[in-house]
Amino acid sequence: MQIITPTLLVDKEKVLANIEKMVNKANKNGIRLRPHFKTHQSVEIGSWFRKFNIEAITVSSVRMAQCFAKAGWKDITIAFPVNILEINEINKLAKDITLNILVDSLEVVNFLHENLETKVNVWIKIDVGYHRAGISWDDFDEILELTEEIKKSRNLSYIGILTHAGQSYKAVSKDEILAIHNDSVEKMEKVKDILIKKDFNVEISVGDTPTASVVEEFPGVDEIRPGNFVFYDLKQLQSGSCTEEDIAIRLACPVVAKYESRSEILVIGGAVHLSRDFIIDKEGNTIFGYVSRQLEKGWGVKIQDTYVSSLSQEHGTIKASREFFNEVDIGDIVLIIPPHACMTTFSMRRLKLTTGEDIHVKCV
Amino acid sequence: MQIITPTLLVDKEKVLANIEKMVNKANKNGIRLRPHFKTHQSVEIGSWFRKFNIEAITVSSVRMAQCFAKAGWKDITIAFPVNILEINEINKLAKDITLNILVDSLEVVNFLHENLETKVNVWIKIDVGYHRAGISWDDFDEILELTEEIKKSRNLSYIGILTHAGQSYKAVSKDEILAIHNDSVEKMEKVKDILIKKDFNVEISVGDTPTASVVEEFPGVDEIRPGNFVFYDLKQLQSGSCTEEDIAIRLACPVVAKYESRSEILVIGGAVHLSRDFIIDKEGNTIFGYVSRQLEKGWGVKIQDTYVSSLSQEHGTIKASREFFNEVDIGDIVLIIPPHACMTTFSMRRLKLTTGEDIHVKCV
Repeated sequence: MQIITPTLLVDKEKVLANIEKMVNKANKNGIRLRPHFKTHQSVEIGSWFRKFNIEAITVSSVRMAQCFAKAGWKDITIAFPVNILEINEINKLAKDITLNILVDSLEVVNFLHENLETKVNVWIKIDVGYHRAGISWDDFDEILELTEEIKKSRNLSYIGILTHAGQSYKAVSKDEILAIHNDSVEKMEKVKDILIKKDFNVEISVGDTPTASVVEEFPGVDEIRPGNFVFYDLKQLQSGSCTEEDIAIRLACPVVAKYESRSEILVIGGAVHLSRDFIIDKEGNTIFGYVSRQLEKGWGVKIQDTYVSSLSQEHGTIKASREFFNEVDIGDIVLIIPPHACMTTFSMRRLKLTTGEDIHVKCV
Repeated sequence: MQIITPTLLVDKEKVLANIEKMVNKANKNGIRLRPHFKTHQSVEIGSWFRKFNIEAITVSSVRMAQCFAKAGWKDITIAFPVNILEINEINKLAKDITLNILVDSLEVVNFLHENLETKVNVWIKIDVGYHRAGISWDDFDEILELTEEIKKSRNLSYIGILTHAGQSYKAVSKDEILAIHNDSVEKMEKVKDILIKKDFNVEISVGDTPTASVVEEFPGVDEIRPGNFVFYDLKQLQSGSCTEEDIAIRLACPVVAKYESRSEILVIGGAVHLSRDFIIDKEGNTIFGYVSRQLEKGWGVKIQDTYVSSLSQEHGTIKASREFFNEVDIGDIVLIIPPHACMTTFSMRRLKLTTGEDIHVKCV
């Protein structure tokens, strides 16, 4: 494979193994796996899920839902509080597919009641501690009021409560992830108990790659919505959600310069390629990517004491061990494990399979 | 103007005023303005420079050079150390336009000597303190050796020494920027003195928006290469390079939810829209954007005690003053001053003029 500019490589076998593992886990637990497609945003990679009998998916915008609906997906959750300005687009989509949306305010429920033209499934978004979106899990009165309003509306079909324990992305150990999962599910079940007492039939949907990867059993949960696991990345590696071999993508970057006095290697591979996400390692270093150098299948293991230490728009600086520095030449290709697969895929817009074919990221 | 999803607005009048100011400054100083087009990456916005008689431009990749060459630009500097893997593309470009490239190692100079098919202008990239790329300014022997090698080569036409004092982007006052500029130019002149003693004719090129914006006189400098000034942004505002009114872009975002207990407003407008750059304000807050709300011309001034406090892939959280929180409704559009114009433009790929026309960012 000839690579001359930054190229995002995908190992399809690793991707399929990641999908299979998650599907098996969901099946074993008798829960629905509704993968989040925002990670790959690709019609082609989306299609790989079909052989595992996945029919329901998650996306994060109306535009992404339109794109995957066009590609034949018939059951889509838009996991973002409804944007009422897109009501026309939502109405159009709801005529073609089973559309599932999120609400977290009376105002929006009332708006939908007035403006929806077709039946749409509704989840109430619950905040279990991430504090980004949703009604706080312990605000039982508001949750109950919203549920009652949804139940009254002809075009809103109530399903249950949904959360995203995004705080798990900051975890740095499996134990921490497990604790976050147990805490979220416990809170969701408390909400469910209140609603069941009022005779509401309630499903629980949770979703994030760290908990879905680490947790083995999901009592109380009806649906999981991980996305990142399809590729995994540096953040997931740090949190213990995956091993280095599970990570199914690498950014291949050309080496353009070497600076011996500071043992640094300059590559084309900056924020427009990797994005600007990072991890902080145990020594307090800011790390934008780990590095390996075997372009062939498998990609080799990460080089010790070597990492992407800074990024600007197109430049990436690799702080290299003396040994690695001496091994690498100008004009070589090095491989970088991206810090955050979703953002790198979004930035690159094009993936290259290790077998050579290009995949365009169409649903951005 | 009807906006229903995140939209990057551009005020053409502000852009033209920013360009005119920089052109006048360059003309007054008798130096060449070679604007960096990586900020807008747009053929359309690039064309606005023509009425100011700008004919020479800067880009950061071979691909961007190819794109702007196709759009009719005939004198392009690729301000990135040469990627020898792209030698075929460089040879093709050099046949059509005046191509100027950067080198900072003997290895690459020798490679070019062997592999260039047409005459190409060459700058030696000098590091004056940013430590990203270039030969350290005080490594006179290496600079001299490289210059001599370039002079020997038939296809390399030596121009001079070029630097990017990128440390200026971290400055938080005009005085700091001025000090950085004076320091860089002083170092560049010391290099020049050494080269002149060997009878080499040497031009000096410097380039970054903070110094180009703040400095009024440029003794010793032959060329400046700012890019960001076309739009400006939050980082430039913080450093004192521009005023709030100079900032020619805003990301218009729909409000989807409000959380009263934490006085936060949720918008569609995340890292895939704004990018993940930020500033730290005097109180130590991490700020991904300032907020205003007047969609009409001028956009209004930033709301006090209100800013984008966190981002995820598609979500933006605005920490709002109580007053602003109460004024804003779900379904409103708010305007965000992006932290880093170049990255926001790259992520959005489409701009909308305040007069309504769409501009596609083609040269990414």
